[in-house]
Amino acid sequence: MYDDGRNRVAIDYVGPQVDGGRFPIKRALGETIAVTAYAFADGHDQIRVGLLYRKSGQAEWTIRMMDYEVNDEWSGSFPATEFGDYLYTARAWVDRFATWQSDLRKKLEAGQNIALELRTGAPILRQAADSAAPAEAQRLRDWALLFESPDRIEPAARVALGQELTEIMAKHPDRSGATTYHLELAVLVDRPKAVFSAWYELFPRSFGPPGAHGTFRDAERILPDIAALGFDVLYLPPIHPIGQTHRKGRNNSRTVAAGDPGSPWAIGSSLGGHKALHPELGSFEDFQHFVRKAAELGLEVALDLAFQCSPDHPYVTEHPEWFRWRPDGTVQFAENPPKKYEDILPLNFESDHWRELWEELKSVVRFWIDQGIRIFRVDNPHTKPFRFWQWLIEEVRRDCPEVLFLSEAFTRPKVMAHLAKVGFNQSYTYFTWRNTKWELEQYIQELAQTDVGEYLRPSFWPNTPDILPQYLQYGGRPAFIIRLVLAATLSASYGIYGPAFELCVAEAPEGREEYLDSEKYEIKQWNRNARGNLGPVIERVNRIRRRNPSLQSTRNVELYPIDNEALLCYAKATADRSNVTIMIVNLDPHHRQSGWVRLPLEKLQIDPHRPFLAHDLLTDDRYIWQGETNYIELDPHVMPAHILRVQKRLRREVDFDYFM
Amino acid sequence: MYDDGRNRVAIDYVGPQVDGGRFPIKRALGETIAVTAYAFADGHDQIRVGLLYRKSGQAEWTIRMMDYEVNDEWSGSFPATEFGDYLYTARAWVDRFATWQSDLRKKLEAGQNIALELRTGAPILRQAADSAAPAEAQRLRDWALLFESPDRIEPAARVALGQELTEIMAKHPDRSGATTYHLELAVLVDRPKAVFSAWYELFPRSFGPPGAHGTFRDAERILPDIAALGFDVLYLPPIHPIGQTHRKGRNNSRTVAAGDPGSPWAIGSSLGGHKALHPELGSFEDFQHFVRKAAELGLEVALDLAFQCSPDHPYVTEHPEWFRWRPDGTVQFAENPPKKYEDILPLNFESDHWRELWEELKSVVRFWIDQGIRIFRVDNPHTKPFRFWQWLIEEVRRDCPEVLFLSEAFTRPKVMAHLAKVGFNQSYTYFTWRNTKWELEQYIQELAQTDVGEYLRPSFWPNTPDILPQYLQYGGRPAFIIRLVLAATLSASYGIYGPAFELCVAEAPEGREEYLDSEKYEIKQWNRNARGNLGPVIERVNRIRRRNPSLQSTRNVELYPIDNEALLCYAKATADRSNVTIMIVNLDPHHRQSGWVRLPLEKLQIDPHRPFLAHDLLTDDRYIWQGETNYIELDPHVMPAHILRVQKRLRREVDFDYFM
Repeated sequence: MYDDGRNRVAIDYVGPQVDGGRFPIKRALGETIAVTAYAFADGHDQIRVGLLYRKSGQAEWTIRMMDYEVNDEWSGSFPATEFGDYLYTARAWVDRFATWQSDLRKKLEAGQNIALELRTGAPILRQAADSAAPAEAQRLRDWALLFESPDRIEPAARVALGQELTEIMAKHPDRSGATTYHLELAVLVDRPKAVFSAWYELFPRSFGPPGAHGTFRDAERILPDIAALGFDVLYLPPIHPIGQTHRKGRNNSRTVAAGDPGSPWAIGSSLGGHKALHPELGSFEDFQHFVRKAAELGLEVALDLAFQCSPDHPYVTEHPEWFRWRPDGTVQFAENPPKKYEDILPLNFESDHWRELWEELKSVVRFWIDQGIRIFRVDNPHTKPFRFWQWLIEEVRRDCPEVLFLSEAFTRPKVMAHLAKVGFNQSYTYFTWRNTKWELEQYIQELAQTDVGEYLRPSFWPNTPDILPQYLQYGGRPAFIIRLVLAATLSASYGIYGPAFELCVAEAPEGREEYLDSEKYEIKQWNRNARGNLGPVIERVNRIRRRNPSLQSTRNVELYPIDNEALLCYAKATADRSNVTIMIVNLDPHHRQSGWVRLPLEKLQIDPHRPFLAHDLLTDDRYIWQGETNYIELDPHVMPAHILRVQKRLRREVDFDYFM
Repeated sequence: MYDDGRNRVAIDYVGPQVDGGRFPIKRALGETIAVTAYAFADGHDQIRVGLLYRKSGQAEWTIRMMDYEVNDEWSGSFPATEFGDYLYTARAWVDRFATWQSDLRKKLEAGQNIALELRTGAPILRQAADSAAPAEAQRLRDWALLFESPDRIEPAARVALGQELTEIMAKHPDRSGATTYHLELAVLVDRPKAVFSAWYELFPRSFGPPGAHGTFRDAERILPDIAALGFDVLYLPPIHPIGQTHRKGRNNSRTVAAGDPGSPWAIGSSLGGHKALHPELGSFEDFQHFVRKAAELGLEVALDLAFQCSPDHPYVTEHPEWFRWRPDGTVQFAENPPKKYEDILPLNFESDHWRELWEELKSVVRFWIDQGIRIFRVDNPHTKPFRFWQWLIEEVRRDCPEVLFLSEAFTRPKVMAHLAKVGFNQSYTYFTWRNTKWELEQYIQELAQTDVGEYLRPSFWPNTPDILPQYLQYGGRPAFIIRLVLAATLSASYGIYGPAFELCVAEAPEGREEYLDSEKYEIKQWNRNARGNLGPVIERVNRIRRRNPSLQSTRNVELYPIDNEALLCYAKATADRSNVTIMIVNLDPHHRQSGWVRLPLEKLQIDPHRPFLAHDLLTDDRYIWQGETNYIELDPHVMPAHILRVQKRLRREVDFDYFM
């Protein structure tokens, strides 16, 4: 039998919740966490519902009263003022005083005798008096006596329904028999960059003098340019010593030529492993200088965490127990049969010595945290155990909650989602291959408007050093602008593999979605100022993102209808709708496309009977529009997209309204 | 840190589940419980997923292998062979042998040297040998040696990929590092009548000789008629002594006339309470005789559980602590201000003596179980605590799992749903007020095609003694047929307040949805054979339900499009599609309506190029149809609905196919 069967309120749901509370939701510092509860009692009694929340580790709940919405749903919120984890749940109880007061009012309005009802209220006031300060307690007791005076019904009724009593009683709620929801839900509070960030990826070795291996000092020289383009994260592929054994040559060739630098992801040589620097890039002092210089320019350096080894990595000899050995006495290299990756040895997470392995890998992260790094792009996390990541991220966050991990898991949907659930702060997505209107609409709805948005923060990348999608191969410069605008305005976080994107590099091996002459296997010389480079467009897009808070969130996206399958229209607004941006993108990089967009005027608070101004922030063009449907025409060879801000009233020299 | 970090499989979901496993799903005896799991490992390894299930109380899980479907989703099922509760969950592990075998096959197909790969397989076989019977163990060890023979690659490969080894290895799975889903989910297994039932409600006191109070013996005489109509549950309003104090007169009048029998829901008098019989109905022997006679005819008697008291109920004096006393020394009667129900005293579930109250109420249920009753229609469960019902139903089911409780909660949606979650086996619904096509489509989709269908089993009632909906008041006889067909074919369980429904009684007090001269407050004389009575239609509908298994489930409903807002089309099919019924209902009780229905021919396995026969089971009419769209015309004054069975091939005297 139940401990207290008199407990009459049920709480059926508190949310948001992920997988029945198994995983936390994610929010950024400064965000308000809106909470919904479904709560109700048997019968007609009124209830009150409190939102309980506390910082993880604190003993005491803070309670905030929730508001009744509709259909037994209650809403409340609390602010995320500190990094780390908060817990939240709800508690509800029958409000005897409010029930009594409401019944009394109804009876009075129906002209019924309320003498008995007033007397019934007296003990409720006396009980509240027991927990009130002396002065208030005295007033409550006086009123209780008044309620019991059969000859003073009218003044008693005035007190009973009056504001003064209501306010005093609200201070002394009787929460006996309260029900607390059976789950404590968690929210991870990250810093805002977890939600809103613009990443630029480059290989520092490609920024030296012609023919030479570039260094951190060389690469430092282009930091002002990258910062001027408006990026705030500079992501470097692995910067560790590169193995010699089975080193890949240009274009992933199995035969290596003298001077071929090898893939930075083949980590480790006699010169060191994951805690060492590739000597040709420079010293730790150079690296520190690079990171500081970037920080001064507003660029945070993100490193790559690729937990794998070249055959020359010191781990192989120092910790043979962390590898899988084959019957011929060699270490098992990475395979996805029939493909072989002989330059990469995976770590064996099924080793009997997994605990030591986990600790060592954590020490790698700690090492780079000590070097000032707070963002890690994690290479192929889906080929290492989920439990390892959950542990690692929790451990790191405990001391250093500002650290962010981006999951590079281009894998199956449920695996990708699970990695986000176990803790990754950002995730690569399928955006890279979503090109048509239907695909983009479906995908952004899934990411932004379902539960997925509670735990998976997308990062949209039009390209990476590994991936040159067909759309970019065949669409020319307009395709790059289209994908840039989509990535940067659909998702609050996005990134580009920078130089190749800026220069619209589009050459791939026949039938593949990879770069020909990939920078992974050779040192490039980039002329970022070449004719046709996208610098000015990128700079403009990033500036628009910074100046329009509506673009600094992903989950606020709304799709608007437009009657052309080549045109995609979506909008974003801040919660108070003070900033609204409307994006219209021509997905066809070849042809001019036109159509009629339909705007939800009421939601946008636009008067259907007056003209308004649509100001294109990309081109600075302005369009005078009126009403729900408006004409769009986008020539991809001029500019394939609009990013519009709506100005609701046209400014006029003379205010004609006076005469209308 | 985790106990075993080598555990590599994640199980993200096992379902069906209600509220993250907080409440059980419901199924009927003999049903198969289909279970879905989302499971995956990191990397490329193959996994196996087992469905675990056991009867509650048993220690050991039974395991059945699940099948891979798509997108990391696995499916399995287990049969519900006994009453009571089953638990189910899933367990998954990396299948090292299958992974090895698959890699080997890919390498062989790519023409790679597999000598080393074969050697890698040997220890896998040897490990399996350790748990195999001697003969099999020997074969495994022999094969392991073969795999290690560098000069016997071809025969070794044949063995490695052969069926024999695969089958032996499947018998000895290596489940080390298995992951078990974190929840054990529950299913309540009821008897089939919980899903499929046809209820007839009557007041026995109205079946005596003219002017007299009818008895069980009197009412017994119409049992063969009710059984012949095809019902299987006979539901009686309360049969206990009726209070005198504040007894309501005819039409719910506060002034009672001599001979007014009072409402059966005003339970209790000096003659007894919830365990007594109203003496004018007869003795316990008469009641027993009535129940037995009904049972012989296939009618199970359901009683009303109305946990409330008239002011004369013995509880009031024997257990004053179970009531709420007012300051004037009277007991608080039921109120929903400004409405007063002075003939009803609610029990005070907030009493300090709630434990004794709960036990007493349980003893009431036990009392009637001992009298042979196994179905209870529970009056207003939403005005008593949810925890009480959860406890009561669990307690009763423990000894008597065949007992069914129908929740009469015409209240707010979440409250209605919660009562179903805490254990009610069937629930009254909003069907009574859902009349238009949009309303009916939305509602049946919610009940049948969302999670609601996992725990709430609807019972559709076109009328009750309390409710005469406007649709029946204004629509004449066709309206009654329309609502009958909808109730009986949309929901597998339905019921009617019988005599008034059969006779199309439609008179209500002005502006109300109640019966004028309600049977709740007076003894009626019903001439069930009056001209225009619905007996033949009801009998036909119930016969169709019994003969067509597709109509014995609610969750299998599918909506088909039809181009007229007055026409509703839906279909039901058995899992194997051996029985398919298509219902088309004209919702307009006044006018003939016509339209074109669109059938999903492929799903129905109907050849679009051949005619087929649509056989109306209601009228025995037959229509020759062809193709996707077919014409419908329904005159409500003839018959407002079709219940069609499709006969896919027309039978012909001569088989013309031979010549075509």
